[in-house]
Amino acid sequence: MTTGLTLGALRACPPSERMRLLDQLRDEHRALQALGLALDLTRGKPAAEQLDISDAMDGLLQEGSNSVDGIDARNYGTLEGLVEARELGARLLDVDASDVIAWNNASLTLMYYLLHFAHHLGINGRPPWQSVCGDDAVKFLCPVPGYDRHFTLTEALGIEMINVPLLDDGPDMDRIESLVRDDSLIKGIWNVPKHSNPTGVTYSDAVVDRLAALPRMAGEGFLVLMDNAYGVHDLHFPGPRLKSPLAAARQVGTQDQMALFASTSKITYAGSGVSFFAAGAHLRKAMLKGLSVLAVGPDKVNQLRHARFLEGRIEEQMRAQAALMRPKFELVEQRLAKGLAGLAEWNTPTGGYFVSVNLAPGTATRCVELAREAGVALTPAGAAFPYGSDPEDRHIRLAPSFATLDDLGEAMDAFVLCARLATLESIDKKAARS
Amino acid sequence: MTTGLTLGALRACPPSERMRLLDQLRDEHRALQALGLALDLTRGKPAAEQLDISDAMDGLLQEGSNSVDGIDARNYGTLEGLVEARELGARLLDVDASDVIAWNNASLTLMYYLLHFAHHLGINGRPPWQSVCGDDAVKFLCPVPGYDRHFTLTEALGIEMINVPLLDDGPDMDRIESLVRDDSLIKGIWNVPKHSNPTGVTYSDAVVDRLAALPRMAGEGFLVLMDNAYGVHDLHFPGPRLKSPLAAARQVGTQDQMALFASTSKITYAGSGVSFFAAGAHLRKAMLKGLSVLAVGPDKVNQLRHARFLEGRIEEQMRAQAALMRPKFELVEQRLAKGLAGLAEWNTPTGGYFVSVNLAPGTATRCVELAREAGVALTPAGAAFPYGSDPEDRHIRLAPSFATLDDLGEAMDAFVLCARLATLESIDKKAARS
Repeated sequence: MTTGLTLGALRACPPSERMRLLDQLRDEHRALQALGLALDLTRGKPAAEQLDISDAMDGLLQEGSNSVDGIDARNYGTLEGLVEARELGARLLDVDASDVIAWNNASLTLMYYLLHFAHHLGINGRPPWQSVCGDDAVKFLCPVPGYDRHFTLTEALGIEMINVPLLDDGPDMDRIESLVRDDSLIKGIWNVPKHSNPTGVTYSDAVVDRLAALPRMAGEGFLVLMDNAYGVHDLHFPGPRLKSPLAAARQVGTQDQMALFASTSKITYAGSGVSFFAAGAHLRKAMLKGLSVLAVGPDKVNQLRHARFLEGRIEEQMRAQAALMRPKFELVEQRLAKGLAGLAEWNTPTGGYFVSVNLAPGTATRCVELAREAGVALTPAGAAFPYGSDPEDRHIRLAPSFATLDDLGEAMDAFVLCARLATLESIDKKAARS
Repeated sequence: MTTGLTLGALRACPPSERMRLLDQLRDEHRALQALGLALDLTRGKPAAEQLDISDAMDGLLQEGSNSVDGIDARNYGTLEGLVEARELGARLLDVDASDVIAWNNASLTLMYYLLHFAHHLGINGRPPWQSVCGDDAVKFLCPVPGYDRHFTLTEALGIEMINVPLLDDGPDMDRIESLVRDDSLIKGIWNVPKHSNPTGVTYSDAVVDRLAALPRMAGEGFLVLMDNAYGVHDLHFPGPRLKSPLAAARQVGTQDQMALFASTSKITYAGSGVSFFAAGAHLRKAMLKGLSVLAVGPDKVNQLRHARFLEGRIEEQMRAQAALMRPKFELVEQRLAKGLAGLAEWNTPTGGYFVSVNLAPGTATRCVELAREAGVALTPAGAAFPYGSDPEDRHIRLAPSFATLDDLGEAMDAFVLCARLATLESIDKKAARS
């Protein structure tokens, strides 16, 4: 297959030439299988050298275990988290420290809590979603492609998901506003507003403002969830700027229906960091009330380590991360441009952890299968959609961070080959049917 | 008031003598108020010198960040926890490492998860409790006095609580068996089986066996919760031995209805430790399934620190804790014996964190109020009972760990005075009415 060959050209290709190309790609795929590769592009895990950047955290307690306001981090209590940890969260979320709860290692857990509290127990003085919706399912809006764990969480709580398109400046607000006007069972919307997972979009000011205003249209029980997982995870500095969602909400009085989340998982240690929640005073209080039932407080020792380690040097830390990430993203871009130009579409991320690839419709599942046969694990096709179901079966999420550059190169070569093969197989099948 | 004066003697006291005693105690209480004390016996918080014992944990990552089986603790994953952390949990819970999930800083959170999963989502292939009970409330058995946070958690989830007496060898099993036979809406029972909070009881082998057999009587949805918070927290070594609840459950086939919990909160750092869950394979799998929705994994870095720090030296660590705790418990015992013998009853703990005092019926709330006026914060009367309601208003939980010995002595003197005054006031009121 010649580089630069387009989908259109392939479709117009004479059958004999197509068969020749198909045989050639199948030979290459067989040769690849014989190599016995074992490569993994599935999850957005930092590489070991990214984790090494934070190894100086261990030992920082030797400076003492008290917070700046004299609280012994080693003992029980301080449900909202240490003040210096809340300040760290405030910088990540573009809010005030007083808006923030600093908690344990996973912001996903805080998202789960908020939805569980709202759905099963009721928050903000409102009845539980499950009780007002009766036998009908509560519904959530899910901009797609999106983060698979948001969707798994939503499904596990028994909440029905509705796809809405994620455009280049954020989710399709016209569609969203029309949906919430028509259906009072829609109780919230997921967002990754900066360097979105997986398409890398950063929401425009106009979209942030329209999302902030959405609860006034959708009703009192509605929540706008902003998982700002990549708020400082730029590849180039300064990165794109996100308008503060909480400030936008305060301007229109919806601050108690706007929930922000962040964590240090991809700043320091993945899975051993500090997570953050921010919201208006009432919603924050509702969250604290729920948290008070299930724990005496967060791990403040880890909060103290993080606050001391990152004090005044978040950008320095993220520049060090970006220096390790950039070559990997550049390699992915180069291999995609060389191997799939004209055959697929993808984004060139300005930050975050993923590259989002759209193959020819109907070929993503087959591409993942071919890659698996060749020893390259890809995120399952459809993973970035609710119920794992991509209506067009074309989207694949690549996670280049964990592999070494050498492995990444091999994996990308294999991916390109499998994408080409899946594409040509699909064209061939259609031609045979017509 | 003469030391050794009994309730009976006080009640039989001539009115003039009673008035004299009352005036004298009121004078003493006024003098106490003038001191402006600010002492706190409310919560089972370790003292700073207990936390110091574990300060060598900081820096242990310099030995490397890989687990014994080669997992980088700094990265995502390993939902069930690091193998060395699970081994630590196994030693605390008297089970195998393969029975254990090692999680974050709060075992209370794991208890919350289990009840939330069972109540709202359904576990073990069973429907959610909330759905099978319809409009009727799910019920839980609560041995009393018990741990206030268990009761707050249960109430928050909308589960109704039924008091059952906690006897000297564990809860009243005759009563429990009779209750579960008569009421299929009873879905579980709370237990702190060793050095119980707050009465210090350790369950007998016979009670462990009867609790293990209880699910066979109560039905498939029923859970026996064993919060073994003080499993190694002896004051003298060797401490009382608890028969392994999971082993007992396996003998009668109820291992998937027996849930064990523990944490290192009162072994190392309070609130910054590692928590543990253990159960039969099916229940453990159900728990992991629920956890997989709300987090990528636990904080394994903290697990690695704890496992390395406590490896082969749990008893040494607990002997160091006991050396700091014993003088405080001895002081409490001495002041109670000197000031309240004949007027109140209390236990002499063999471990754990609390002393449980039963005053004359109807006087606990008043005693706490008098202590507050004198600058001594006590746990609210009734806190050790569901809904904060002690039917006899006589129980007070003392938490001597956090105060210095000097402060504890002052606080105990104040407590004794307030208990005497509340008792005499109550006798005087009754005499006035009769």
